[in-house]
Amino acid sequence: MRRIEALGRISEERQRLTRTFCSPAMRRANNLVAAWMRQAGMTVREDEIGNLIGRYGRPRGKVLLLGSHLDTVRDAGRFDGALGVILAISCVEQLRRSNTRLPFALEVIGFADEEGVRYQSPYLGSRVVAGTFARADLRRKDANGVTMAEAIRRFGGRPARLKQAGCDHTQLLGYIEAHIEQGPVLEQEDLAVGVVSAIAGQARLRFRFIGQAGHAGTTPMRSRRDALCAAAEFVLAVEGCARRRAGLVATVGQIQAEPNASNVIPGTVTVTLDVRHQSDPVRRRAIAQICNDAQRLCLARKMNLVVEVIQATATVPCSRRLTALLKRAAGKHQARVIGLPSGAGHDAAVLAKITPTAMLFVRCKGGISHHPAESVKVQDVRVAMAVMTDFLVLVASEYE
Amino acid sequence: MRRIEALGRISEERQRLTRTFCSPAMRRANNLVAAWMRQAGMTVREDEIGNLIGRYGRPRGKVLLLGSHLDTVRDAGRFDGALGVILAISCVEQLRRSNTRLPFALEVIGFADEEGVRYQSPYLGSRVVAGTFARADLRRKDANGVTMAEAIRRFGGRPARLKQAGCDHTQLLGYIEAHIEQGPVLEQEDLAVGVVSAIAGQARLRFRFIGQAGHAGTTPMRSRRDALCAAAEFVLAVEGCARRRAGLVATVGQIQAEPNASNVIPGTVTVTLDVRHQSDPVRRRAIAQICNDAQRLCLARKMNLVVEVIQATATVPCSRRLTALLKRAAGKHQARVIGLPSGAGHDAAVLAKITPTAMLFVRCKGGISHHPAESVKVQDVRVAMAVMTDFLVLVASEYE
Repeated sequence: MRRIEALGRISEERQRLTRTFCSPAMRRANNLVAAWMRQAGMTVREDEIGNLIGRYGRPRGKVLLLGSHLDTVRDAGRFDGALGVILAISCVEQLRRSNTRLPFALEVIGFADEEGVRYQSPYLGSRVVAGTFARADLRRKDANGVTMAEAIRRFGGRPARLKQAGCDHTQLLGYIEAHIEQGPVLEQEDLAVGVVSAIAGQARLRFRFIGQAGHAGTTPMRSRRDALCAAAEFVLAVEGCARRRAGLVATVGQIQAEPNASNVIPGTVTVTLDVRHQSDPVRRRAIAQICNDAQRLCLARKMNLVVEVIQATATVPCSRRLTALLKRAAGKHQARVIGLPSGAGHDAAVLAKITPTAMLFVRCKGGISHHPAESVKVQDVRVAMAVMTDFLVLVASEYE
Repeated sequence: MRRIEALGRISEERQRLTRTFCSPAMRRANNLVAAWMRQAGMTVREDEIGNLIGRYGRPRGKVLLLGSHLDTVRDAGRFDGALGVILAISCVEQLRRSNTRLPFALEVIGFADEEGVRYQSPYLGSRVVAGTFARADLRRKDANGVTMAEAIRRFGGRPARLKQAGCDHTQLLGYIEAHIEQGPVLEQEDLAVGVVSAIAGQARLRFRFIGQAGHAGTTPMRSRRDALCAAAEFVLAVEGCARRRAGLVATVGQIQAEPNASNVIPGTVTVTLDVRHQSDPVRRRAIAQICNDAQRLCLARKMNLVVEVIQATATVPCSRRLTALLKRAAGKHQARVIGLPSGAGHDAAVLAKITPTAMLFVRCKGGISHHPAESVKVQDVRVAMAVMTDFLVLVASEYE
């Protein structure tokens, strides 16, 4: 917890925690975490994009990856990402202290970018490790006009070598990530930790309701084609659709009315829709239903509708084998172990392309995340550490 | 119509029509309209705030006011305001051409500010005439930091004298304003003109729905307190309430969600409400009903609600006597004459404090106003002119 505090003080902004990809704050964070890794008996390196990697055990051969990311959102909490990296280092320390030998090496990785704040493109770190980094991203510019290639160069990496920078996939045994839940389920279930079943697929769409602007005082109700009324029906249809389907979450997070004046009937309203469910067919059916509802209500109101798909990612299931072992380990420290989908994306979803993955969720206060109020109990961190260490021992016992 | 065109070309912006209070464009507009007034045989003066007044007939004694405003909104149409002033001048020309003598003087007035664009404070011109100008307004600043007092001085007026600048109310017989309807009723009824029964009272309120922001992917539906869902219910409750009450219009024109990000559940949503009806009790009951609905739905969703009244103006009924004469005059040119409330505010509502008022509405295309597409048929303007002239003769015959 002291390390969480120390890392939480490393920020590129005064008064609040913000640590973006390849920033001077990231340099200081990597240096601090590298020192902890060395203290824990690891050999430390940084790859071409700035991922920090500490290796414990044999310098060659099979390796199990543990970790999370070291970057943050703007005005972040201290646990998102940092907890997973620091917890992994603590596990290594515990193994070393108890003189536990594993039949494979451990690598603790602190990814350089998961949040995608600086270049509006998330998972830069894990994509390099997975070999799915898109070279075109190097031309992206940050808010100050600095290209990603330049930022990586200044940080000490070599953009030209990113493609070959990934680890040797044939040696990978798996990837385990501990992370705060960022949701309220564990708190509601009164559980310190939970095991992630899958990283839920996500669709993001944009709906534009086009009616007719008009004078708020002179246009009778029967003559109106009020785009905000249509959008309001839509928001409630989305909520109803999600409430009727177990495990589905659907959110209208953004809304923009035009002309957005108190004395003008809204002519156009644009909203975003975010839909997530761990079952791809369930999610697709829900989206189809919502689009149907939108069409139907626009027809009834004589309005036009433009629907745009912004992003659609499939569900990434966690490894059954690793997840079963993680549940067994958790069962030693908790009377009841639940599996739950992750509604948020994680590096684990990227690494799942190359190796079996598993995730351990740690209860966080009120489900609050991406906010300075992010908070985790010391006791829960202790449970998570014990579970992770026992899990490593279980993997080792199965390996032999 | 040529005059409407000519006046419509006088703007402070290229490509679009914008003529704000005391602007150089207003100076050119006043000069042009003054020339037309003189051609029509009027003596012309400008009062201390820049209202342009042309007098026809005896220099002393009773006077009937006719007119409207010469300022515009940004990116305006050519008819709102201008039509009423130009139509009044044409009536004077017609009376002069037909050698009709009236037992009172006519004053055609072009108000310097009705829209309130420059100082966010409408009816500056008519408030000076009515003696209700608020001296505190002189300290208001425009977007460039120019105080109203300074703007008036540059235009040629004397801010210190505004209080005494009003006309002699004891000499006033009434005020008649012709204006485009700015709504679709006359078009739907297939009528060139209509007579205004009252200028509907208006209430503007702000509602803030306070729920709880949260991660769109990790917060189950049952754990949410989504402020946008509450606001959506509110928008539909407002629409339902207005639809159930004849003549009521209620509009949610502005909406602002926070944090307004596609992957965050809206924590707070603020909306404006605009309610108008010509009966004050009906309007008040509707507002009470809407506030009740808002409270009820916030209670059901465990949310907080903040309601703020921004503005509340009572209905201003038009003079029964003048309105009856205007209807008689309209009946000569139209088989059917309807009375309709004005949902928009007008200078007539300000002048009603000091003299009987009446208003003639002229059909406009699609009810569109405050937009370059504002359009009125030549034939309808001809009808309006004939009605206004006949009305003046009727007033004169009653006077004698």
